[in-house]
Amino acid sequence: MRRWNGWGDDATVVELPAHGEAFLAELVGSGQLLADASLEQVLAQVPASRLQAHPLICLNAEDRVRHARGQSLPDWLAMRSGDFGVFPDGVAYPESAAQVRELLAWASQHDLIVIPYGGGTSVAGHINPQASNKPVLTLSLARMSKLIEIDHDSLIATFGPGANGPQVESQLRAQGYTLGHFPQSWELSTLGGWVASRSSGQQSLRYGRIEQLFAGGKVETFAGTLEIPTFPASAAGPDLREILMGSEGRFGIISEVKVRITRLAEQENFYAVFLPNWQQALSAIRSLAQARVPLSMLRLSNAIETKTQLALAGHPQQIAWLEKYLALRGAGEGKCMLTFGVTGSRTQNAASLKQAKKLLKSFGGVFTGTLLGKKWAENRFRFPYLRHGLWAAGYAVDTLETATDWSNVDNLLNKVETSLRTGLSEEGEQVHVFTHLSHVYNEGSSIYTTYVFRPGANYAEAMARWQKLKHAASLTIAENRGTISHQHGVGRDHAPYLPVEKGELGMATLKALAGHFDPEQRLAPGVLLQD
Amino acid sequence: MRRWNGWGDDATVVELPAHGEAFLAELVGSGQLLADASLEQVLAQVPASRLQAHPLICLNAEDRVRHARGQSLPDWLAMRSGDFGVFPDGVAYPESAAQVRELLAWASQHDLIVIPYGGGTSVAGHINPQASNKPVLTLSLARMSKLIEIDHDSLIATFGPGANGPQVESQLRAQGYTLGHFPQSWELSTLGGWVASRSSGQQSLRYGRIEQLFAGGKVETFAGTLEIPTFPASAAGPDLREILMGSEGRFGIISEVKVRITRLAEQENFYAVFLPNWQQALSAIRSLAQARVPLSMLRLSNAIETKTQLALAGHPQQIAWLEKYLALRGAGEGKCMLTFGVTGSRTQNAASLKQAKKLLKSFGGVFTGTLLGKKWAENRFRFPYLRHGLWAAGYAVDTLETATDWSNVDNLLNKVETSLRTGLSEEGEQVHVFTHLSHVYNEGSSIYTTYVFRPGANYAEAMARWQKLKHAASLTIAENRGTISHQHGVGRDHAPYLPVEKGELGMATLKALAGHFDPEQRLAPGVLLQD
Repeated sequence: MRRWNGWGDDATVVELPAHGEAFLAELVGSGQLLADASLEQVLAQVPASRLQAHPLICLNAEDRVRHARGQSLPDWLAMRSGDFGVFPDGVAYPESAAQVRELLAWASQHDLIVIPYGGGTSVAGHINPQASNKPVLTLSLARMSKLIEIDHDSLIATFGPGANGPQVESQLRAQGYTLGHFPQSWELSTLGGWVASRSSGQQSLRYGRIEQLFAGGKVETFAGTLEIPTFPASAAGPDLREILMGSEGRFGIISEVKVRITRLAEQENFYAVFLPNWQQALSAIRSLAQARVPLSMLRLSNAIETKTQLALAGHPQQIAWLEKYLALRGAGEGKCMLTFGVTGSRTQNAASLKQAKKLLKSFGGVFTGTLLGKKWAENRFRFPYLRHGLWAAGYAVDTLETATDWSNVDNLLNKVETSLRTGLSEEGEQVHVFTHLSHVYNEGSSIYTTYVFRPGANYAEAMARWQKLKHAASLTIAENRGTISHQHGVGRDHAPYLPVEKGELGMATLKALAGHFDPEQRLAPGVLLQD
Repeated sequence: MRRWNGWGDDATVVELPAHGEAFLAELVGSGQLLADASLEQVLAQVPASRLQAHPLICLNAEDRVRHARGQSLPDWLAMRSGDFGVFPDGVAYPESAAQVRELLAWASQHDLIVIPYGGGTSVAGHINPQASNKPVLTLSLARMSKLIEIDHDSLIATFGPGANGPQVESQLRAQGYTLGHFPQSWELSTLGGWVASRSSGQQSLRYGRIEQLFAGGKVETFAGTLEIPTFPASAAGPDLREILMGSEGRFGIISEVKVRITRLAEQENFYAVFLPNWQQALSAIRSLAQARVPLSMLRLSNAIETKTQLALAGHPQQIAWLEKYLALRGAGEGKCMLTFGVTGSRTQNAASLKQAKKLLKSFGGVFTGTLLGKKWAENRFRFPYLRHGLWAAGYAVDTLETATDWSNVDNLLNKVETSLRTGLSEEGEQVHVFTHLSHVYNEGSSIYTTYVFRPGANYAEAMARWQKLKHAASLTIAENRGTISHQHGVGRDHAPYLPVEKGELGMATLKALAGHFDPEQRLAPGVLLQD
């Protein structure tokens, strides 16, 4: 069953190995354990609902608890401490676009706030209800998860917006297709959520971001239904899809999604290569991207992430042998691991692999075959579970991401890492920080940074530490030509930093659009645009 | 010098060969010649300007004539007949963003209409001034055509918005780069125009449409300056670039453009393959697109276009031998020519060519090498000049385009062709109609149709015939799931058909945006959105 206070299914447990714990203890000090609240304690806090009864709305306390928080670190701290703050007054589970419209009309009639809810995996505070005089209705799309239709010639699939990653892929794979969209939240996050938040998946290099995959669909708004037809491309005015993508529930509720799908590839392999140092690794990955080598995935860990991953992996003896071999071949201290994927026909993959190996060799890359690549593929959705393992060992972990042009990647990455690494120096605390580039483009790259710190003596201290770190990193991003989000969206947590990149007129434009679609500001107020 | 009443430089003359004339005479009847007006006759009609003097504005009659019309067939008829209708009251040539802002302020102060003008190549009525109580100022970006900066790591070039195709490419090529954007209007159309109208170039398969190339820049609006920073990708809310692209001058005037460039490829080749019939050809091109074979160009002529191209080509004897050879190999009557390009490193191109040949062979494709491909590349920008050759022989020619999903390509193509072919049956006139697919996507394809007809006894008749044909085809597109434009934009000519694809709420959204940026509706009124 899905955890009410953490990530994923409670049958999946990812523990921190003993040598990993020792590794962290040396870096940031020994773990600090905080006590968890029980579900019963939290249920006891849920106040009476302010909503009137409606056949589509559930007022049950547990439903309200389970839809009150996302998966950000502050959400984690709230769930673990039991200090949830605000709960939605009810959760609706519509089963059709007509029911979504009915609920919007009801919300208008009864002066409600409405929070659209997909998989509840936001790490930026998208779905958290705020204290308000108006009752808050969370509208879950979970019951609209069916594959409705496939156009086999045009490779377009029509889905309900609530289909999560496994529901999308299993329904497509049964007919020989894939969407190819694999964000790390894939097990729980949904198609509608991906569209609303401009999501990107691990194999965006081949399949594209959701911007390339989202072909059209329907959106229910307070100003009516927006129907977006599918075209392969169009020069007929601004693209309405693009206005919807990134609107994070502020403009309307997506009730149908059409996506571009791909026939399952004949073959897919992932490989690992080690580069001797960061500068060569950075040049290598940029060259691969700009030379348009048709790879399906590229992920480059910096030296600290490489070291951390090898330290936290199982089989220390095997890793030791690998590191000896790599050192002999020129990739010793400071080495960086690059993982790449080839997906396509056997002929295509052979050609891509040949190009990639040749180019990587010219940067001193040491090729290690498919073993570590396979490990990556097996564990690709397990990282979010590691928060549990780390927490149980007394550590808090969070990630953040940005993207910037190549000429600024190294600069921004260093500044973000430094802002986090030194962020708790006043507290005398070490923060362990490491980074990878996992979405690369001709123009630049995403920068994905993980930071591990000790929570302190209590939840208030943990929260204060996180706020300090998050603010330092966010400010660094905003002031150094990074986007405040490459793949997680804006939500509430990033909203204060958005005006730097959108500018005054840009912000006014987004506000004008929100006012156009939702004149009474019922939908997710405070998300994306601070009110 | 640039022609004042037609396409391109007057030193370039493309005549219809004698056998081409015979070919057309058999299909649509012998040509009908209409007399051309002289520049002097037109200059004599230009009324006094209603504008006050301003140092940046030219009130000269010839400048006003040369900025009154685009390159649509109605524009052609207006220019040839001398019946221009409305002229702008003046033409401004700002040299900086500050001067653009100054002109906008002046326009506001003096209650003017402002028409942003790039290369004047619109084929949809974007830049034609309309009769108005307010004086009309055409604002040409021609003097803002410089390459300002290149970021060599991120492959981003910053240009003035008025740089036309040759100016863009020559400035980039001098440093080893290309933009890779080659619309047929490339010789005259401009970067700012491409962005404003969502342009697509002949090699969009490799380089992307302008949507993929446009990285950011500046826009001067009546609500202030919109600065769009460059990011390789972002999940931080709706993408302001996408709101600008396709705004066709309604929201503001682009004063700086940043584009994603590419290092010049080691090698580029174009090849021609003949498929035995349309159905196999259509399946072949769809398979090439969906198998993600990394080609840089794909263009498939239907059987009538193939026949027409071979008939209008020079060297009839050579063509006769080619056709005998093709017939022997299985591509006889009904054959379709497919041209494709490979661009990249020698290794990449060899791999791509191998994949393409193998796949095309499985559909009965007969490969003819690079000769016809080279011809295509040499002549790729000459087609617009052919309007002169055809006109001199007594024929009017126009083109139109749409895009639709693969499952609808054949249906829509046939319906569009039929609407044109039978469009003048009441007049007892034949229309020669042929089509190619030249921009292909996983999801579908563009459909680009050319139609040749006799203009009739006078210009009024010619115009009435065009209107009838254009309306019939546009209605067919709108009613059959096509977009009203794949690459030419909306302008005035397509505006009546736009609501079918955008829907009521979509149109209201675009109007809300226009009202937000330009509350007094000074910019290009009637373009994109009918007022």
